Amino acid sequence: MSLLVVGSVAFDSVKTPYGKVDRVLAGAATYFSLAASFFTDVRVVAVVGEDFTGKEEKVFLDRGIDISGIAREKGKSFFWAGEYGENVNEAKTLDTQLGVFADFNPQIPEKLKTTEYIFLANIDPTLQVNVRKQINGAKFVGGDTMNYWINGSRQQLGEMMRVVDALLINDTEAKMLAQEFSLVRAAQKILTMGPKALVIKHGEYGATVFFQDGAFGMGRHPFRAPTLPIEKVTDPTGAGDCFAGGFMGYIASQGQLTREVFKRAMFYGGVMGSFAVEDFGTARLQKLTRPEIEDRYKIFCELTHIE
Amino acid sequence: MSLLVVGSVAFDSVKTPYGKVDRVLAGAATYFSLAASFFTDVRVVAVVGEDFTGKEEKVFLDRGIDISGIAREKGKSFFWAGEYGENVNEAKTLDTQLGVFADFNPQIPEKLKTTEYIFLANIDPTLQVNVRKQINGAKFVGGDTMNYWINGSRQQLGEMMRVVDALLINDTEAKMLAQEFSLVRAAQKILTMGPKALVIKHGEYGATVFFQDGAFGMGRHPFRAPTLPIEKVTDPTGAGDCFAGGFMGYIASQGQLTREVFKRAMFYGGVMGSFAVEDFGTARLQKLTRPEIEDRYKIFCELTHIE
Repeated sequence: MSLLVVGSVAFDSVKTPYGKVDRVLAGAATYFSLAASFFTDVRVVAVVGEDFTGKEEKVFLDRGIDISGIAREKGKSFFWAGEYGENVNEAKTLDTQLGVFADFNPQIPEKLKTTEYIFLANIDPTLQVNVRKQINGAKFVGGDTMNYWINGSRQQLGEMMRVVDALLINDTEAKMLAQEFSLVRAAQKILTMGPKALVIKHGEYGATVFFQDGAFGMGRHPFRAPTLPIEKVTDPTGAGDCFAGGFMGYIASQGQLTREVFKRAMFYGGVMGSFAVEDFGTARLQKLTRPEIEDRYKIFCELTHIE
Repeated sequence: MSLLVVGSVAFDSVKTPYGKVDRVLAGAATYFSLAASFFTDVRVVAVVGEDFTGKEEKVFLDRGIDISGIAREKGKSFFWAGEYGENVNEAKTLDTQLGVFADFNPQIPEKLKTTEYIFLANIDPTLQVNVRKQINGAKFVGGDTMNYWINGSRQQLGEMMRVVDALLINDTEAKMLAQEFSLVRAAQKILTMGPKALVIKHGEYGATVFFQDGAFGMGRHPFRAPTLPIEKVTDPTGAGDCFAGGFMGYIASQGQLTREVFKRAMFYGGVMGSFAVEDFGTARLQKLTRPEIEDRYKIFCELTHIE
């Protein structure tokens, strides 16, 4: 089944203890779609400026991604410059230039409106809701958000949470959104706000999914997927988006949503995140193969498997 | 097989958002031995003061724990008073009184010197090394330490690490000990310091064990055990010691140390830690039964199990 992502296609300049890159292809929708493309057909809805050239197009097209929903505008694409220190969990933003993204008002092309799986990457929740309304027949919708919207657009975010099936956020965002220190209580509170499933990402410790009672015919027990302990995080940018891409991509590829599918999707999410950080920008994802993904999936399963 | 622990038997006054208790039985060796007693025969070597009465003795004896190695001295037992806020990962120490523990110089009684499994709970590393030397025939020795010794007694700690088979510490301690931000690099560095296995506890995210190449005939791959997401942490004190008790107790109960035994020991460690935090002090451990442990063990296995 096909999967559509709405979000940012951008350029990043990133410095980490392992080196630096200047204006490389990035953005949540880019990372997401590349990761998801190993599992299913992917369509991207985004806006870019004149700096988005054939070179960048090729990265998507080489992975068979449909970019007919990427609008081209006069001006520059979204740009972010940041730096990570030894602690890869903390990015220092050096520069942000919205460019053509400032007026982003995503319109879903007619031929993409039948897409069954949707991911609303981290953009203004008002826009996320607008997109959701344009695709009535969607079977399963995932969404992301960030501190900026949690603090500043709580009402709009509340509406967004009522139109997604699964919300994917990290520990800090979950605690902030629920205003709770306990992760479990935070999860319970967020599930009352709308989403049937809440995936909380724990960075290098993996991720946990919590379910509304009876959602997707699943038991109430949460499920945890580990991540591989990684020695060298070359560039952590996009790891969360790649988690979402692996997660949603695997779900879309399976057609039916059982507890087992959900569990495996959590593992594939972790696998894709673990590849993303091995090189700068999208470099590792561009070289990646499905057999490599399956090999690492097996290692992830073995990592916590007990007889 | 029998298991001997050397460490503190103490009294704690603890305040958390869920209530408070005054001068209840506590200390690393207490938590450890109660947790381990569900798996194997346990002996405690410690020192207590005159405030340690028949009431406290009974807690150990009810669990069949051998307390012939607990020395009685004139004065008061080790006392700690602390408070936890909503963030259970941070304890605020209000008072510490070493009492008779200040002159603790553990002597292993002759009849306990044949013990095959040893745990050196968190005390001065010089004392840990002295204990290790008194028990030559030990098959497997585990050890714990803390920031205080990592910062102040690095040389003695270095010696301690060369006489233990497994070191059990948390993320912060591992990073501090190795002076590394990356957990994997920290683990690799610590393994060169002596221990054949390094168990790093991640609090609510579980624990990971790293092995020296070829140690215990095990593969190089690390292993991760989850913990149950817990809604209400009534009192986090002793969770790490109960993890160690479950871990060492299960290993001692199996006699041989295969990779599967090590993996199950990691799960049982998490299980015992998860029970410890459900009530103040040792209250939950005193009421606990083996069937409850097995039930939760199954939930832990299911939590990350994938077909």
